[in-house]
Amino acid sequence: MNTIVEVISPEKLLSHWQGHRNLTRKVIEAFPEKDFFEFSIGGMRSFSALTSELLAMGAPGMKGIVEKQETPFQENSQELTTKEQYLEKWDQATEEINQYWSKLQVEDFNETVNLFGHYNFPVIENILYIIDNEIHHRGQGYVYLRALGIQPPFFWER
Amino acid sequence: MNTIVEVISPEKLLSHWQGHRNLTRKVIEAFPEKDFFEFSIGGMRSFSALTSELLAMGAPGMKGIVEKQETPFQENSQELTTKEQYLEKWDQATEEINQYWSKLQVEDFNETVNLFGHYNFPVIENILYIIDNEIHHRGQGYVYLRALGIQPPFFWER
Repeated sequence: MNTIVEVISPEKLLSHWQGHRNLTRKVIEAFPEKDFFEFSIGGMRSFSALTSELLAMGAPGMKGIVEKQETPFQENSQELTTKEQYLEKWDQATEEINQYWSKLQVEDFNETVNLFGHYNFPVIENILYIIDNEIHHRGQGYVYLRALGIQPPFFWER
Repeated sequence: MNTIVEVISPEKLLSHWQGHRNLTRKVIEAFPEKDFFEFSIGGMRSFSALTSELLAMGAPGMKGIVEKQETPFQENSQELTTKEQYLEKWDQATEEINQYWSKLQVEDFNETVNLFGHYNFPVIENILYIIDNEIHHRGQGYVYLRALGIQPPFFWER
């Protein structure tokens, strides 16, 4: 008999993350073009700016983890000027994340990597931070959508 | 040599969650008493109502998982009428979660449990859902605080 003796496998953690990324993609799609770039509450960043942060963390974070690079964190939001461009970049990142992930062995998750030359933590902690940060900012996007009178996608739709 | 061959240990996942719960506690504390119960944006629930949901999921969810009960989900927000009562209940839940968690073996995370008689998924998926749902709603609390002109705690403060 084969007993599974792990809390979560690398494959399942990836599909958990990609499920969240799929939901975030739906939230991006739900914004009207103008509001994606301009709407905000209480002096916060627009959802496009928040999305730029997520894009700068996801695939580049995985690259840094897998290649053990310490390239500083860098957002390139000025490059993207339409929702369509964000969605394209989002889908590219989906592929890149999958590719980098396939190079991680289960032992690697407990190795310490100095992500972005700044976050010197075990790989699993850096990855959970990236996922949690996405959930956090997407939750803020839900409030923006509600304030705009738009029904956000269901939280459990992945 | 002992090589760690797991993505995350049960102990680390618990401290990850309790770190998030500690941050959520700070967000509750940051609300003025009145706004905790009354402030909302776009027809959403107040942060006290969101906190009631989190309280109904955390410790009761762990109880359901450990005791394999299918007790339906039930919020008792009407019972709590001050922020102080919420914080007390939050701290009780911290202890209860720790106690239930200590009864979980690593093999249990892949067992399927019909949480609240409705969410028939592996334990790890139910637990991640509970954590992610907390991050999601707390992110919404951040927007409420910003809209109220209050600086929320740093996201990385756990």
